[in-house]
Amino acid sequence: MRFFKITLAYDGGAYAGWQVQPDQPTIQQALEDAWQKVNGESVRIVASGRTDAGVHAIGQVASLASETNRSCDVLLRALNANLADDIVIDSVEEAADGFHAIRDANGKRYRYVIDDGATPNLFVRDYAWRFAYGRLDVDAMDQAAKSLLGKHDFSSFEAAGAERKTSVRTITDIFIERQVGHNGETIVFEVAADGFLYNMVRNIVGTLVEVGRGAQPESWVNDVLKTCDRSCAGPTAPAQGLFLVHVDYE
Amino acid sequence: MRFFKITLAYDGGAYAGWQVQPDQPTIQQALEDAWQKVNGESVRIVASGRTDAGVHAIGQVASLASETNRSCDVLLRALNANLADDIVIDSVEEAADGFHAIRDANGKRYRYVIDDGATPNLFVRDYAWRFAYGRLDVDAMDQAAKSLLGKHDFSSFEAAGAERKTSVRTITDIFIERQVGHNGETIVFEVAADGFLYNMVRNIVGTLVEVGRGAQPESWVNDVLKTCDRSCAGPTAPAQGLFLVHVDYE
Repeated sequence: MRFFKITLAYDGGAYAGWQVQPDQPTIQQALEDAWQKVNGESVRIVASGRTDAGVHAIGQVASLASETNRSCDVLLRALNANLADDIVIDSVEEAADGFHAIRDANGKRYRYVIDDGATPNLFVRDYAWRFAYGRLDVDAMDQAAKSLLGKHDFSSFEAAGAERKTSVRTITDIFIERQVGHNGETIVFEVAADGFLYNMVRNIVGTLVEVGRGAQPESWVNDVLKTCDRSCAGPTAPAQGLFLVHVDYE
Repeated sequence: MRFFKITLAYDGGAYAGWQVQPDQPTIQQALEDAWQKVNGESVRIVASGRTDAGVHAIGQVASLASETNRSCDVLLRALNANLADDIVIDSVEEAADGFHAIRDANGKRYRYVIDDGATPNLFVRDYAWRFAYGRLDVDAMDQAAKSLLGKHDFSSFEAAGAERKTSVRTITDIFIERQVGHNGETIVFEVAADGFLYNMVRNIVGTLVEVGRGAQPESWVNDVLKTCDRSCAGPTAPAQGLFLVHVDYE
């Protein structure tokens, strides 16, 4: 048995998220179908985390065990040839025995993009939250975000109904800034942590936007954190602005 | 009669270019239809240049004469409300009497984006030329491009069959470089000139790529320029990587 580590990017717009679901297109299904076509073998492919419907990935990592004899290079090309153009595998590597994309992950980085221009930036219309209610105070949002750095109980930012052993996580990097790209300006938020609770990034972004639009003071984000009560935080930001950027392994 | 200057962006992917054509969706048609709906008035809208099918615009400029009484602000909002999300008007301004987007233009800037990554960058798949044959030598392309700076007869880079009074133009800025954006690396080419011949930017890019892939030496681009013969230049680069960035007026 060989173990593989697959690094891939996808545009989540056309998918009902990572995980296989009956009668819905999913990333996992597309990959498992491609593997079946290439290797004539039915495998289960596990991702570092199950991205939701509409969420994108730049550097998602998946693992699987297989009996295939093909080289990583051949697998890379053959799998890509059997995937639609909104999923691209960037590397296929042989991993240590027993490699598992969830269990072995040490941390992740997410990005969230917001377009708050006076008129929409149409070139990011599928890859950003279009915020049409005025210019956000990004400096205030960044200051507020800094209060989330470090080890905390993030249950205020965990989706209701999610059950995890612990809601304590450590955020190692967090910032939000305006960035000018080829096609105009966007607001880019990034957060890295040793792990994330369900909907944690989108709930943090929705909360920071309350500060950015002036509805709450900067200090409010730290207050929300301390309540450990989801109902105190802001709304969940839309899926289409979220990107899984990177997953760390040993 | 009032004269208007409209600045707009569009994703050219779904359109057969700027100019009205029977039974084809065009940017001009979409704008004229929106104007008709908003003002109950049939007008002719002229763009600074007729972008081809699939070409994008970040800062296209259009002009029209109208009898409308509405304010520019109301027109901006009402027109955008009547356009699909792949066309966005960024401003509507009242212009000097007789303002004409073609005649009054003093210069333009175009951008061209190439993705030469080992695997495709799927987030630019509709907005770049996917070059899948290896990494381009961008420094050599930039050096070669610099030989086009200044006032020259650019007929080597003019589409066959195009008829203009003169094929002499002045390039005031030209460069090509790698840029790292949110979602990965791309090659960005930009060129500004007092005017452009038909397909000139795409023909220059196609010619520079011959240098970048090592098929021709840097000096070859200057040789091509001097021949004044289109058949000596490289192929025409695909439309979907091209953006009209800006049009200069007095």
